[in-house]
Amino acid sequence: MTKKLKVATIGGGSSYTPELIEGFIKRYDEFPLTELWLVDIEAGKEKLEIVGNLAKRMIKKAGLDIRVELSLDREEALKEADFVTTQFRVGLLEARKKDERIPLKYDVIGQETNGPGGLFKGLRTIPVILDITRDMERLCPDAWLINFTNPAGMVTEAVLRYSNIEKVVGLCNVPIGIEMGVSKLLDVDHSRIRIDFAGLNHMVYGLNVFLDGENVTEHVVEKLTDPKQTSFVKNIEGIGYDPSFIRALGVLTCPYHNYYYKHRDMLEKQQKEADEQGTRAEVVSKLEKELFELYKDDTLDIKPPQLEERGGAYYSDAAVRLITSIYNDKRDIQPVNTRNNGAIASIPDDSAVEISSVITKDGPKPIAIGDLPVAVRGLVQQIKSFERLSAEAAVTGDVDLAVLALSINPLTPSDTVAREIVDEMMEAHKDHLPQFFNK
Amino acid sequence: MTKKLKVATIGGGSSYTPELIEGFIKRYDEFPLTELWLVDIEAGKEKLEIVGNLAKRMIKKAGLDIRVELSLDREEALKEADFVTTQFRVGLLEARKKDERIPLKYDVIGQETNGPGGLFKGLRTIPVILDITRDMERLCPDAWLINFTNPAGMVTEAVLRYSNIEKVVGLCNVPIGIEMGVSKLLDVDHSRIRIDFAGLNHMVYGLNVFLDGENVTEHVVEKLTDPKQTSFVKNIEGIGYDPSFIRALGVLTCPYHNYYYKHRDMLEKQQKEADEQGTRAEVVSKLEKELFELYKDDTLDIKPPQLEERGGAYYSDAAVRLITSIYNDKRDIQPVNTRNNGAIASIPDDSAVEISSVITKDGPKPIAIGDLPVAVRGLVQQIKSFERLSAEAAVTGDVDLAVLALSINPLTPSDTVAREIVDEMMEAHKDHLPQFFNK
Amino acid sequence: MTKKLKVATIGGGSSYTPELIEGFIKRYDEFPLTELWLVDIEAGKEKLEIVGNLAKRMIKKAGLDIRVELSLDREEALKEADFVTTQFRVGLLEARKKDERIPLKYDVIGQETNGPGGLFKGLRTIPVILDITRDMERLCPDAWLINFTNPAGMVTEAVLRYSNIEKVVGLCNVPIGIEMGVSKLLDVDHSRIRIDFAGLNHMVYGLNVFLDGENVTEHVVEKLTDPKQTSFVKNIEGIGYDPSFIRALGVLTCPYHNYYYKHRDMLEKQQKEADEQGTRAEVVSKLEKELFELYKDDTLDIKPPQLEERGGAYYSDAAVRLITSIYNDKRDIQPVNTRNNGAIASIPDDSAVEISSVITKDGPKPIAIGDLPVAVRGLVQQIKSFERLSAEAAVTGDVDLAVLALSINPLTPSDTVAREIVDEMMEAHKDHLPQFFNK
Amino acid sequence: MTKKLKVATIGGGSSYTPELIEGFIKRYDEFPLTELWLVDIEAGKEKLEIVGNLAKRMIKKAGLDIRVELSLDREEALKEADFVTTQFRVGLLEARKKDERIPLKYDVIGQETNGPGGLFKGLRTIPVILDITRDMERLCPDAWLINFTNPAGMVTEAVLRYSNIEKVVGLCNVPIGIEMGVSKLLDVDHSRIRIDFAGLNHMVYGLNVFLDGENVTEHVVEKLTDPKQTSFVKNIEGIGYDPSFIRALGVLTCPYHNYYYKHRDMLEKQQKEADEQGTRAEVVSKLEKELFELYKDDTLDIKPPQLEERGGAYYSDAAVRLITSIYNDKRDIQPVNTRNNGAIASIPDDSAVEISSVITKDGPKPIAIGDLPVAVRGLVQQIKSFERLSAEAAVTGDVDLAVLALSINPLTPSDTVAREIVDEMMEAHKDHLPQFFNK
Ligand SMILES: [Mn+2]
Ligand SMILES: [Mn+2]
Ligand SMILES: [Mn+2]
Ligand SMILES: [Mn+2]
Repeated sequence: MTKKLKVATIGGGSSYTPELIEGFIKRYDEFPLTELWLVDIEAGKEKLEIVGNLAKRMIKKAGLDIRVELSLDREEALKEADFVTTQFRVGLLEARKKDERIPLKYDVIGQETNGPGGLFKGLRTIPVILDITRDMERLCPDAWLINFTNPAGMVTEAVLRYSNIEKVVGLCNVPIGIEMGVSKLLDVDHSRIRIDFAGLNHMVYGLNVFLDGENVTEHVVEKLTDPKQTSFVKNIEGIGYDPSFIRALGVLTCPYHNYYYKHRDMLEKQQKEADEQGTRAEVVSKLEKELFELYKDDTLDIKPPQLEERGGAYYSDAAVRLITSIYNDKRDIQPVNTRNNGAIASIPDDSAVEISSVITKDGPKPIAIGDLPVAVRGLVQQIKSFERLSAEAAVTGDVDLAVLALSINPLTPSDTVAREIVDEMMEAHKDHLPQFFNK
Repeated sequence: MTKKLKVATIGGGSSYTPELIEGFIKRYDEFPLTELWLVDIEAGKEKLEIVGNLAKRMIKKAGLDIRVELSLDREEALKEADFVTTQFRVGLLEARKKDERIPLKYDVIGQETNGPGGLFKGLRTIPVILDITRDMERLCPDAWLINFTNPAGMVTEAVLRYSNIEKVVGLCNVPIGIEMGVSKLLDVDHSRIRIDFAGLNHMVYGLNVFLDGENVTEHVVEKLTDPKQTSFVKNIEGIGYDPSFIRALGVLTCPYHNYYYKHRDMLEKQQKEADEQGTRAEVVSKLEKELFELYKDDTLDIKPPQLEERGGAYYSDAAVRLITSIYNDKRDIQPVNTRNNGAIASIPDDSAVEISSVITKDGPKPIAIGDLPVAVRGLVQQIKSFERLSAEAAVTGDVDLAVLALSINPLTPSDTVAREIVDEMMEAHKDHLPQFFNK
Repeated sequence: MTKKLKVATIGGGSSYTPELIEGFIKRYDEFPLTELWLVDIEAGKEKLEIVGNLAKRMIKKAGLDIRVELSLDREEALKEADFVTTQFRVGLLEARKKDERIPLKYDVIGQETNGPGGLFKGLRTIPVILDITRDMERLCPDAWLINFTNPAGMVTEAVLRYSNIEKVVGLCNVPIGIEMGVSKLLDVDHSRIRIDFAGLNHMVYGLNVFLDGENVTEHVVEKLTDPKQTSFVKNIEGIGYDPSFIRALGVLTCPYHNYYYKHRDMLEKQQKEADEQGTRAEVVSKLEKELFELYKDDTLDIKPPQLEERGGAYYSDAAVRLITSIYNDKRDIQPVNTRNNGAIASIPDDSAVEISSVITKDGPKPIAIGDLPVAVRGLVQQIKSFERLSAEAAVTGDVDLAVLALSINPLTPSDTVAREIVDEMMEAHKDHLPQFFNK
Repeated sequence: MTKKLKVATIGGGSSYTPELIEGFIKRYDEFPLTELWLVDIEAGKEKLEIVGNLAKRMIKKAGLDIRVELSLDREEALKEADFVTTQFRVGLLEARKKDERIPLKYDVIGQETNGPGGLFKGLRTIPVILDITRDMERLCPDAWLINFTNPAGMVTEAVLRYSNIEKVVGLCNVPIGIEMGVSKLLDVDHSRIRIDFAGLNHMVYGLNVFLDGENVTEHVVEKLTDPKQTSFVKNIEGIGYDPSFIRALGVLTCPYHNYYYKHRDMLEKQQKEADEQGTRAEVVSKLEKELFELYKDDTLDIKPPQLEERGGAYYSDAAVRLITSIYNDKRDIQPVNTRNNGAIASIPDDSAVEISSVITKDGPKPIAIGDLPVAVRGLVQQIKSFERLSAEAAVTGDVDLAVLALSINPLTPSDTVAREIVDEMMEAHKDHLPQFFNK
């Protein structure tokens, strides 16, 4: 008789789900999943059906004995789960559009994980995540929460500070994307590359790059100063850093660093794109519709290649890799969002950081790096402060804190603009911010 | 017979000198100065004569037996000095004009202690200061270096890290200005107010305000949310922070915080002023000329009231207060730039911070504050990183480091703009940057 | 009309009280006390009467208008007090005798503030102190708790960790005793000496000695290597450290350090004294009887000189000095037990340390020292661990923790001896350890 | 053609060498050694011949193509080495006998890695190790130094602080011994156990025990409270800790902790053994003679089973495991002595700690643990202080520092006894302490 092994995926109706399914199929040998519960809310029922049926066909084709349940009942889904993954989006793409459009009106970056968009996505998401953790305490106290939901750093911080569960890991595909980019840059297989990552979610740095164990950081950095070399991670078109900057920085940045180190250019680019082709949410919205049309085809029984264009490459794959390592106590090194525990000196022990960690059955164990390079310590600290204040605002419903959080964000031009944006976005997202309105 | 007590003032020809003289006269009972050496460079000889003669008249009028020496020979002046004060300006106001004008061309704040201006003033000043410390080692190894020269935080950092002298204090009139502003706000005498200051030079926060020893911080913060209340420190016209921001921040800011928390407004303001009335250096240049005209009048034997408009109120007075407390081992509390020594947790022990310290004969002893509030920790860390990289660039003459320092500064819109500004300013200040050009 | 200024002294029947009274009389100009409540328990009623009447005669003689109340009702005494001082002894000298005698049976130091005696005095005292803090929350929430009761470090740690009041200072006469000793050693007036103290209660080090503000530490250390020089603080007869040890240590020790750095000698000395003249409690017991005989004399209206032999010189005086500085926001430097707040790097921020602090109306503000010298950092950390575990045992009534606390104490020869001593002392002090017995 | 892979073993004539050889044979597939240089000094020539010939026979029997060189020329041996292992003993067993016998005369523990013996072994060994590192800089700058030589913690500290090489790892068999002990206790295969180790060499704690990845620490701790359970690591006969102590401590100790937590018993035991059967060095001396008799037998071509009684089980095996993981960038977790780098909060970043680390080609990367439990933090800090002062004394030849180091060691009864022991041992080891005598 097989031992039950249950995963519950909150936001199961997401267009990403086929990638997750593919991940489970690929790693079935190591992770013998018996039950997969895809949970969604009433409003997402139709999508859940479509993607859920595709999931069933994929598993059937793979010839695996995994029970797939589609459910609107979160409690039932969580019951005795071994792993809970979250990939939901409070307010759906409609909310994301607002996160992207409204700030642009104030000449401020509109992005769903940084600046005003990140703040408001956090304010909407954190109460829901904390609700889930309360359910988990009751229904599956030993389960691991694997959080994909953005802003993943802020959400992990909130779970660490304001929930009673300790088994939480935040996950992002940015580090694996950087590894892939470096592999390509050096024209070697991905498996030969290891990078010491440290920082925060969407603000992670590659401190050292190893090729077959040899430190080749300087060589990689030098290659990045080549003007023909553009940003090497998909989804964010390369803009190219100044060679002096790259050389003196001496570590790898992530694509989201563009918002900070190329603030002015990114703002112009966003404004142009918003005018010409729509914001990212608007583009994705269209892509998603097409994807769901594809998914409906009941002869389709694999992950359709078009999904890759949706972004989020490696995301779900990374998730299953993480889950597998926890399940098997693999002790391999993966970059995850976890409790700092002293690994980065200038960040509090009890804050979330994104850092290369040994993945054990007892969770990720971050590898101590001493401290971040002087040049990046300040920005990281600043975003951590932003995350902490945002999480506190999300939990308390204190609008002053929301204004403060946004005012200290480096993408914000002033406290008064912060105030105006908060006011407009608070109103726009009213339905998903009960903590601020129903006091 | 009187015991010799000698002060050497580097940059003695400064228009501020009469205030310093007034300070020495006022505190003569406690600080029985016997020799004051005003030193300047050849190019400043004329001003030195003018201001030096005024100094002599002021002292004569006060009936004090203080020998005033005007000298172009720094070594002679430093010999056996007990205190060395620095108030020189490498490149004079001409250089400052460039620090203010050039960045504005790139839509970047032009200011002599922050952003590009701060960086280049540091690059010009630090080698000279380190040269002075080398002279001091030889000529007056027991003397205290009291540094007024801006950017005072960066300069103090550089002396702590790159010189062999330990007796250095950086000084700024901003904290005393805040105290004065709070006294006025509460309509009480200055002596009844004490503020716990912590942060960096031109980035200092008032963490707690005490009136007759009672903590009245909340009350003061509340008063600051009053829209009729404007910035309460002279020289920087009030713009008024958003009440939510003030309340949630919960601590006092300094005027220079406007550059960060009101970045967009300050840039517009600077651009407008530069167009309409000239930059600050240009205004000051005119003021200085008028002042020196006044100083020439050999019937003048007091500090002329017009000096106050020059800015720098309390500056020299603060300096003499500090010197007097060191000399007399007074153990009173003053806010100064000194070695952190663990007083602020998230700043390295060996970095300079601006912090309320007990002033003893053995120097300032910072009072431990634990850590800065979460909301301000990041910005402070970021400016500290900027200061450290700038100081390192000043010492090594490494242009990559200069580009990096400017790129990570929160006032800079991108690494490429940083690069362009560095290139233009490097060329503009070429004569005062031998470490970059004569390698 | 005079403003009410009320002090409540818990354990008012102590033989020390006349010194406290003398302190209040001396500093009446600065601290215009209007009401002094001497509180004690039923068992101490007689002593309270005797010492209370002496107190009244002393105040009368001084011609001051201070109302002295003798009371067995702690609540009434605490009501609206401005300062609460504690000098009680749970179990009286009888308990102290056990603290001193029982360990000696196991060839272990018997002393009321260190080792087994310190542990058990803590276990008896902490619940009572926490009870008082709960009363204070209700009855005088703005009052300062000035704790003399030993073990003062452990008690302060317990109040900081386990009570809701923040206004607590622990006080000891050891630092002032060291200052007096150094003054004598240098043959100068006490007022000319300042010492940077840092460490823990009864484990405090003098890191730097200043004479008229000049650092004379090396000179003082050199003098201490003189074999003719013995320990310079009263009550603990000098044994003389090895000159190499003194020189390499480079800082001043306190008399209680003998228990650690001269462990074997101190144990032999204690055993000899216990046999020949009785333990300290037994000697003091006799002294106290004589003192109370003196106190009964109703012509006596000053502090009798014989009190000085009782030990505790400067104790109450130090207390009134501290109270006066808080009351007047004096901002002078005094060594006290207070929240570390980052002042000593290797001790947690929220732990109690004994450290030179600026005394303000808002309480003591410790001066940052960076970290303790390498040579003393370990012992201090070890005693802090002992204090923390002991306090936790006192609060939880967990005997395992008491065994652990004693086992890790450097005066304990083994865990099994710790166990035996805990068992015997637990039984001996049963009546005063309800948390362990009435579970 | 095979790639050269060269190991140099300083102290190659050690009786342990056959175990090292066995290790290289076992792991030849992963670590294709081509040259093994066994180096020793003139005085050890005979032993080197004997053990070296056995080594050659062992390798011949294994049918491997490894060139074994016996050499008295350290420089030649180090030239282009890939790994350097050290297992020498300055002064041979004669010196160890003194380390064990002399302290006992003062009723002080005589042991070669703790207390006076540890100090003097450090004073003799550190200059030699630093000499080796200087040779390495010149002759094999890319090689890793794998140090077995005791006191391994102090030696690693000294290399980190006083040499120019960074590639150093200290190694001890204690952690692996604990793992073996726990496996036996739980009656499971060693491979199923993982323990989070943290602390210092010979003062390491097992913070968490995992069986198949599940945290079973509480269960293991509970088993250890069983009075029938004795110390589970070979070589140190079990004495049995008090159950309360074990339970409240909550982590695993190492055998050497007996010297601290059972100080009195261990001293008595040592004194009894010294009288009855000789000190450990004296016993080992006899064992070694027998071993070398065995080794001489030129029909012997395997590691003789009698070697296991010599102690040091797993030692060389652990070394080859470590070397193999570095060579292959294995990224498995092993407990080693390495730079702390923030992994343990209360120990400086640049100090050596013994801690579970990921072993990469770039060296060990310690896993962050936050901080040690309160109960053990103090003792660890104290031994770290002892190690640092001892290392400084070894480098400077400052006898005051040696006295201080020994005085603060918890095994020392007083500074004056420390002084006497230092004087006697300094004289006894004179020939191996040139830094103290030839100044
Ligand atoms: Mn992401
Ligand atoms: Mn200033
Ligand atoms: Mn005391
Ligand atoms: Mn070992």
